[in-house]
Amino acid sequence: MPAQSASTPQPGATKDDLDTPALILDLDVMEANIRTIAAQCAERSVAWRPHAKGHKAPSIARQQLDAGALGVTCAKLGEAEVMAAAGIRDLLIANLIVGPHKVRRLVELRRHADPVVCVDHADQVASFSRAMHAAGLRLRVLVEVDIGMKRVGVAPGEETLKLARLVADSPGLKLAGIMGYEGHLLAVADPAEKAASIRHALATLVATAELLRAKGLPCPIVSCAGTGSYRYSIQQPGITEIQAGGAIFMDAYYRHTCQVADLNYALTVLTTVVSRPAPDRAIIDAGRKTLNKEVHMPLVAGRDDIRVVSLSAEHGTLELDPSAQGLKIGERLELIPGYADLTTMLHDVYHCFRGGKLESVLPIAARGKLQ
Amino acid sequence: MPAQSASTPQPGATKDDLDTPALILDLDVMEANIRTIAAQCAERSVAWRPHAKGHKAPSIARQQLDAGALGVTCAKLGEAEVMAAAGIRDLLIANLIVGPHKVRRLVELRRHADPVVCVDHADQVASFSRAMHAAGLRLRVLVEVDIGMKRVGVAPGEETLKLARLVADSPGLKLAGIMGYEGHLLAVADPAEKAASIRHALATLVATAELLRAKGLPCPIVSCAGTGSYRYSIQQPGITEIQAGGAIFMDAYYRHTCQVADLNYALTVLTTVVSRPAPDRAIIDAGRKTLNKEVHMPLVAGRDDIRVVSLSAEHGTLELDPSAQGLKIGERLELIPGYADLTTMLHDVYHCFRGGKLESVLPIAARGKLQ
Repeated sequence: MPAQSASTPQPGATKDDLDTPALILDLDVMEANIRTIAAQCAERSVAWRPHAKGHKAPSIARQQLDAGALGVTCAKLGEAEVMAAAGIRDLLIANLIVGPHKVRRLVELRRHADPVVCVDHADQVASFSRAMHAAGLRLRVLVEVDIGMKRVGVAPGEETLKLARLVADSPGLKLAGIMGYEGHLLAVADPAEKAASIRHALATLVATAELLRAKGLPCPIVSCAGTGSYRYSIQQPGITEIQAGGAIFMDAYYRHTCQVADLNYALTVLTTVVSRPAPDRAIIDAGRKTLNKEVHMPLVAGRDDIRVVSLSAEHGTLELDPSAQGLKIGERLELIPGYADLTTMLHDVYHCFRGGKLESVLPIAARGKLQ
Repeated sequence: MPAQSASTPQPGATKDDLDTPALILDLDVMEANIRTIAAQCAERSVAWRPHAKGHKAPSIARQQLDAGALGVTCAKLGEAEVMAAAGIRDLLIANLIVGPHKVRRLVELRRHADPVVCVDHADQVASFSRAMHAAGLRLRVLVEVDIGMKRVGVAPGEETLKLARLVADSPGLKLAGIMGYEGHLLAVADPAEKAASIRHALATLVATAELLRAKGLPCPIVSCAGTGSYRYSIQQPGITEIQAGGAIFMDAYYRHTCQVADLNYALTVLTTVVSRPAPDRAIIDAGRKTLNKEVHMPLVAGRDDIRVVSLSAEHGTLELDPSAQGLKIGERLELIPGYADLTTMLHDVYHCFRGGKLESVLPIAARGKLQ
């Protein structure tokens, strides 16, 4: 005896027609952001291979490719499989793929697409080489370089050269270049200091690429950059492509911590006020299972007089200035995610709006593809 | 052209047969935890209505009912719909349900199940009463009382009495009692202080129940308590049932912050070491999209010499003592979630093991039911 569940809203619906909480995507804003980033990259002759780990939707990846993106970046092999199943071939998996299950899947993926993978150790090189060579395939490989983030990657210079040479010499593999990520510099507050520190970090990446070439190794790809840094990174001579992905949605972290100014908020979460326990306090139906607050607290769109002060698992607590204290149970608010990347993964679908009308309900197809 | 995706492991598989990251549930441990809690409640003649927001799986709810639980608690109407579809009728939705979409769904749910809902405002009472009366149905309602947490709920005493009387007088509704949550007291470090403060908070709840009864109102249910407090709460005379749910899985927060000692870890995340960039640093394939660190950092099972020091979206960073520095790329570790409730929601399935062998792959059926 199935109980009725949340019904899927139909095209043409308004936001009032939706139940909440609901993830809302403003297509006009997202498409303008895509055009802006593509134009910024084109102006600097840097390619754009946007990260899909934030949107996880092949049709959005397709829009980015149509706008001029070179390919797609993924964080997980499972995400790349979803993109490949949608016919996208040029897929950078900007992560370290380890273990026999994944190597088998990578061989299968290589039959249908042209992935690029990363390595930071000879063991990974050996496992890819063995599997690809045995399958009669050739896999593009980047060496991941630690340019100061101290997470993964080999040291710039000689260490990278050594691993790159191993890749180039390994049957079944093709050295495609190097990548680094200046992720430790996104939140530097002073713009001049941020520019200088990113320049310094990327200079070591570019110098390493030049070292490889000087030693006779190919290095067509020199990849870096996220949304919080790409405006600086595309100015660095020698960078061939950037991975900035979250930029198409924007969020409070990118705006207020990373000071990204020229893109607009495309993603919101529609919520309902469910309790008004005190004049200055309202509770909404969106907590940490609907929104993430770890990187930046969500903001209330268009309401400077209402602040999200805490999120528990199932509730969000708002603090109301006197001008907002007329807020009633049942009223709705739109929240700007603190960090879109850790918000979309909580949802199954985007409610895609254009001009105030629902255009489509888009599955977040690679959600949960953690492997 | 579909690429091969992660294959579903077959019953009898070992953990080595799984790809990672993977959520692992030890059935023997979970079942022992269920028996322990049921016995603790029975000993105090307090009913157990375990919260399902953490496990989100009807078959686990069924195991709890078979062990003596009175019913199931849910955080969202959508979760209750999943439980009702599996034939579970006695469903407390321990949250405030607001808006015409949800009220319509609640009417439909009432046709198939016997939910109990909460209110903390006359507006909610009016909307439920109108809808249920029009449908010729009667809905059980609890008044949610703020016993010091300052999140939702009406004040104990006269305010609760007033709202309870409104419920009792509203057609289509049946006053079923009151609930409160001592969630602000879970992390009190000193056991004597914790016991005293929980006793004080719950005394106001019980006194309010007695006030209702003295005024001629029924109050069969007096509900409270989560995993971090239930051992104290079941000792409070006048409490009729508790909601502790995460206790069946346990996690680092409950053990180390809430000092829950008599239950064992049933849930882990199996991960693979994917990078060894420095002697004292290892990177695993589980970051914040696989584990949550907001409430407590995950622990490495059975390894005191390895600590999780940070989680970014896609990577986890481990710090290795000298005794652990032989750890190699490809080796596997099991992590104990920092907070199981915010971890299971990131996964699609439990890999259920018994005696080292996979018994089943259980869908987390109510995952993503945010409405």
